[in-house]
Amino acid sequence: MSESKQVQRIGVLTSGGDAPGMNAALRAVVLAADHYGMEVIAFRHGYQGLLDNDHAPMRPADVMHILQYSGTVIKSARCQRFKEVEAAQEAAANLDALSIDALVVIGGDGSFRGAEHLSAHWDGQIIGVPGTIDNDLFGTDATIGYATAVHIAMDALDKIRDTADAMDRVFIVEVMGRYAGFIGLSSAMAAGAERMILPELQKEKPLTISTIVKHIERTNAIRGEGSYVMVLSEHQWPGGAVALAEQLEAEYHLPCRPCLLGHIQRGGPPSPADRILASELGVHAIELIRDGVTKVMAGMQAGTPIAVPLRDTWEKKNPLDSNLLRIQHEIFNPVKKTPRTH
Amino acid sequence: MSESKQVQRIGVLTSGGDAPGMNAALRAVVLAADHYGMEVIAFRHGYQGLLDNDHAPMRPADVMHILQYSGTVIKSARCQRFKEVEAAQEAAANLDALSIDALVVIGGDGSFRGAEHLSAHWDGQIIGVPGTIDNDLFGTDATIGYATAVHIAMDALDKIRDTADAMDRVFIVEVMGRYAGFIGLSSAMAAGAERMILPELQKEKPLTISTIVKHIERTNAIRGEGSYVMVLSEHQWPGGAVALAEQLEAEYHLPCRPCLLGHIQRGGPPSPADRILASELGVHAIELIRDGVTKVMAGMQAGTPIAVPLRDTWEKKNPLDSNLLRIQHEIFNPVKKTPRTH
Amino acid sequence: MSESKQVQRIGVLTSGGDAPGMNAALRAVVLAADHYGMEVIAFRHGYQGLLDNDHAPMRPADVMHILQYSGTVIKSARCQRFKEVEAAQEAAANLDALSIDALVVIGGDGSFRGAEHLSAHWDGQIIGVPGTIDNDLFGTDATIGYATAVHIAMDALDKIRDTADAMDRVFIVEVMGRYAGFIGLSSAMAAGAERMILPELQKEKPLTISTIVKHIERTNAIRGEGSYVMVLSEHQWPGGAVALAEQLEAEYHLPCRPCLLGHIQRGGPPSPADRILASELGVHAIELIRDGVTKVMAGMQAGTPIAVPLRDTWEKKNPLDSNLLRIQHEIFNPVKKTPRTH
Amino acid sequence: MSESKQVQRIGVLTSGGDAPGMNAALRAVVLAADHYGMEVIAFRHGYQGLLDNDHAPMRPADVMHILQYSGTVIKSARCQRFKEVEAAQEAAANLDALSIDALVVIGGDGSFRGAEHLSAHWDGQIIGVPGTIDNDLFGTDATIGYATAVHIAMDALDKIRDTADAMDRVFIVEVMGRYAGFIGLSSAMAAGAERMILPELQKEKPLTISTIVKHIERTNAIRGEGSYVMVLSEHQWPGGAVALAEQLEAEYHLPCRPCLLGHIQRGGPPSPADRILASELGVHAIELIRDGVTKVMAGMQAGTPIAVPLRDTWEKKNPLDSNLLRIQHEIFNPVKKTPRTH
Repeated sequence: MSESKQVQRIGVLTSGGDAPGMNAALRAVVLAADHYGMEVIAFRHGYQGLLDNDHAPMRPADVMHILQYSGTVIKSARCQRFKEVEAAQEAAANLDALSIDALVVIGGDGSFRGAEHLSAHWDGQIIGVPGTIDNDLFGTDATIGYATAVHIAMDALDKIRDTADAMDRVFIVEVMGRYAGFIGLSSAMAAGAERMILPELQKEKPLTISTIVKHIERTNAIRGEGSYVMVLSEHQWPGGAVALAEQLEAEYHLPCRPCLLGHIQRGGPPSPADRILASELGVHAIELIRDGVTKVMAGMQAGTPIAVPLRDTWEKKNPLDSNLLRIQHEIFNPVKKTPRTH
Repeated sequence: MSESKQVQRIGVLTSGGDAPGMNAALRAVVLAADHYGMEVIAFRHGYQGLLDNDHAPMRPADVMHILQYSGTVIKSARCQRFKEVEAAQEAAANLDALSIDALVVIGGDGSFRGAEHLSAHWDGQIIGVPGTIDNDLFGTDATIGYATAVHIAMDALDKIRDTADAMDRVFIVEVMGRYAGFIGLSSAMAAGAERMILPELQKEKPLTISTIVKHIERTNAIRGEGSYVMVLSEHQWPGGAVALAEQLEAEYHLPCRPCLLGHIQRGGPPSPADRILASELGVHAIELIRDGVTKVMAGMQAGTPIAVPLRDTWEKKNPLDSNLLRIQHEIFNPVKKTPRTH
Repeated sequence: MSESKQVQRIGVLTSGGDAPGMNAALRAVVLAADHYGMEVIAFRHGYQGLLDNDHAPMRPADVMHILQYSGTVIKSARCQRFKEVEAAQEAAANLDALSIDALVVIGGDGSFRGAEHLSAHWDGQIIGVPGTIDNDLFGTDATIGYATAVHIAMDALDKIRDTADAMDRVFIVEVMGRYAGFIGLSSAMAAGAERMILPELQKEKPLTISTIVKHIERTNAIRGEGSYVMVLSEHQWPGGAVALAEQLEAEYHLPCRPCLLGHIQRGGPPSPADRILASELGVHAIELIRDGVTKVMAGMQAGTPIAVPLRDTWEKKNPLDSNLLRIQHEIFNPVKKTPRTH
Repeated sequence: MSESKQVQRIGVLTSGGDAPGMNAALRAVVLAADHYGMEVIAFRHGYQGLLDNDHAPMRPADVMHILQYSGTVIKSARCQRFKEVEAAQEAAANLDALSIDALVVIGGDGSFRGAEHLSAHWDGQIIGVPGTIDNDLFGTDATIGYATAVHIAMDALDKIRDTADAMDRVFIVEVMGRYAGFIGLSSAMAAGAERMILPELQKEKPLTISTIVKHIERTNAIRGEGSYVMVLSEHQWPGGAVALAEQLEAEYHLPCRPCLLGHIQRGGPPSPADRILASELGVHAIELIRDGVTKVMAGMQAGTPIAVPLRDTWEKKNPLDSNLLRIQHEIFNPVKKTPRTH
């Protein structure tokens, strides 16, 4: 790709659910823009800031030492109104009034749909940077925030294991990921959980209380009494972990306790993987702009920065790692195994 | 107190909900016993192990490097049957059959009631060591596990703050402590939470949804829009954090997200305060046994190991720190303040 | 004490080595001042800011959500020049020019000496708040930052134990505290270290390489081969941990590895104990000012806020806890014990 | 590859410097072997255990809940004697006497050389699993332990930043990696360090004190006074971080403090990436054995398990990521840039 024109001024915003590493991406965008002689204007509260003209210039001094914090210093928001044509037109007019040549949108699939929507009404370049803990975007090996969320979920599962082991009990930890089981699968694997309830698996063959109880009993039969920890993706059981724990306790007399991690998974210091990924993709976004590209997501595949058409990121499916699933289900926690005798 | 007889053999058990630091207490009991030439027999699964004769000798080599882990290597349990007279008699017979002279019970108030119950049927010395995250025992400045639970709750609140700030949202974090608000108060203070719902406060004057909404609105009026984090002690709201979040969202259109920490508060590496307290109290328990004392809890007051009659530990009340309450309520998060104008 | 006059305007500064919790203290000072209708002026870079007139008003909005971070948002510094009479006079003039009635100094003994020095030349009230990781101030059960430093040192020792155990090796971890062994003693106790080299102990009877080697050999004889972890306070061995490790390796063929924690002990999220202590003492400082008190440190003894004459804080000695020392040396890691035979 | 024979009994050992995740790999080996009907014999203390016949059977029950801990439950060691022909012959004889068909060696390049050496004298299959924090093996995108080491180094750098920022100071953090700068580069990038001293860079063009001072001065000129954090790989400066700090302080009057992380980088709970990688590679090793393969390392490339000839792993070079280097050096911390004027 050749450099189509001299870009002068870049807009940037963070949109949708915040993700650890968004600040690192923001810093990279600002430092890379500065490196290439571009100015950066940051819009606050995502697309809402485009509509409200809520913006400020962002210079290297403004992003010093923000990469170690989660959240986003320019705030995020979900903006329903932005789906309307008038909103996109307003945003386009505001961007033009500020002489902005290109916009970097850091967010997930909803934010990218918003970017696509805007692109129908605005001539500037638009680059997406994948910032979401859910890892559910096609075209990049990982999204910014995912590694941290897995780490936090694993850490919670480790803590639960300590107490579960002390009492030989059953625990359910509800994690994020209503549409995709990435956090569930990876944290379960990392923490050695005995059972996962993930959207992809529930779609195939939903678990019932009695299937769960049978697996607990069989697990105890195989290895002896002990702790049993379940990872439940949100929205995969009516009433969530709290209801499932009550059902197991009421109907099957299994003392069972729930935890609901919720937004804890979005906080704390971002993991190195997220900070590094965010740094590379933030720089890559600016370099894609220099290259004259538009309507793509800056992604990473096998260690190499790549560009993926924005629309592909949500239209194509990012499947769970089949090898991890196989290992977790068939080798580490086999359901059908006959009890051993040693 | 003078040394009444030559104690030879000590029993030890951990009972009730496990608490971070129980292993450190166990280690201290074993090392101190060894130091004074006593043998230690550990019973597994709390009082259940007394009834089942499930025990093993415990020597210094068995407790090397266990102090950094939560849980309890000799397992814990709640034992309903132990409340019966026959159970206490059985336990006494088992202890006598093993020639055990004294028993160290590491646990909370339920475990201490069990110890008192046993003492009516057994002649050996009994010393309690306060191991519970709830900090609800009279006679000791802190219980083993409390500092760690506060740390974990604070850490979760910190993580929530990151994301709450990014979206200017309301969050509720449900923490342990259904009868006592220690974890709630300390973690709220440590994390700068805007609101606490604690058993002691609910007993005085229960909050309603509308009181809560008013405080949120007033807080935003005083300081400007921003994040608002609530700490909710368990069992202080029907349906817990999940229900409260739904109510706030449904009735008052406040986007609100719940977290339910649950047993996460009992895991992970124990805090230094818990390990040090556990070490001191474990040693103190053995030295109280040497001194011929019985039916007391080994506690710590103003940095000095003391002995408190077991019965006092649950019959007398350990109140919340009134200075902390005052600071949190009147100075840091005043309810009645008029909005400032800067 | 009665209220001597209506205080209107408070100065505040953080001075000397920064300590985790300084921000929490600062926040408490600002919120309490606001509560009592006082204004706060913050000086940057400690006493240097007094001389340079480097200051800004500090309002509640400026301290929102700073309590979870270490460091100090108003910067700290060591200011040699402040020891001169002229400097104190300049500072006094600057304070008067700003109509400041009282000054809160958050720092350690050096900072408190500076405060005393200033008080000879300035009529305003001066309150010290103990902010130092060293815990070496008389009159308060703990200083702000100490709990966090111990936690970080313990965490490092825990990590070292993992690898030391894998290889059955000897490790030396150098911690802060050149004049006082508080961090060394507490972290050693919390992490189950086999040996401590602390200033208080070195003063009594300095260890030699051969004493150390003998203790390692005896420890291995008693418990079997295994890991051996030493905690070394800074400046207690010529060349520090690096030199001691080399000597042990060269002269006694013990493979030995050093770690030097350095300023890591001052960073990361402050522990709950430090945040709560800082919150209480920051409020207490303001309330002492209201009470008309001056030249005291706001301290905490047995859970109660107290005031200690500034001069006492460095002239009187805060000794190590003798019970902890006894337990660590005589019970947990006895030097003179004869090897056991089990 | 077809299954060459019916493997019955697998040996496993961990060798060389321990790495976080070795336990997870061990667990995976044992669970996968059990799944395929093989027995596992674990040798303690690496190759030394092969020579000493120090071994024990390892069953699923023996590896329950070890994956969350660093170190290695079967201990590791460096064994100089194993380089001799006689040692390899002895080991071969011992393996044959135990009817072991295949050996899994978890370790780094030294351990793999040992495996190659053994293969000249033993007919069984040998599979390497890359367990080293250094990430310096060719043929796998990452080695087990590397992600955790980077996380710990980054966490230390974050802590240093807090205090460095409070005092506007220069700090040097010495990290592991004497032959490869992976930990140095990744942790520097993740923590936003201003300067790296890595073996790969030193080989090209060694830094001098005056180059370093110039970069510090230029950095301060560009962005204003502030903290400056350097990451130094071990063995890249005579006397290490301690000496470099002294030189900067003595010769250039820059107050500068060193930290030496040392083996802290090998401890603590392994990162999710290491646990997942270890789980996949442990299973993969067993499946390679089933496939009749020998003298390869089980590695991971672009998310797919692969097999790499053992000899390639140390003979071919794993270079630093050139994009990361470029970003860190040219965009984030440009050396030659002219000071900005905003």
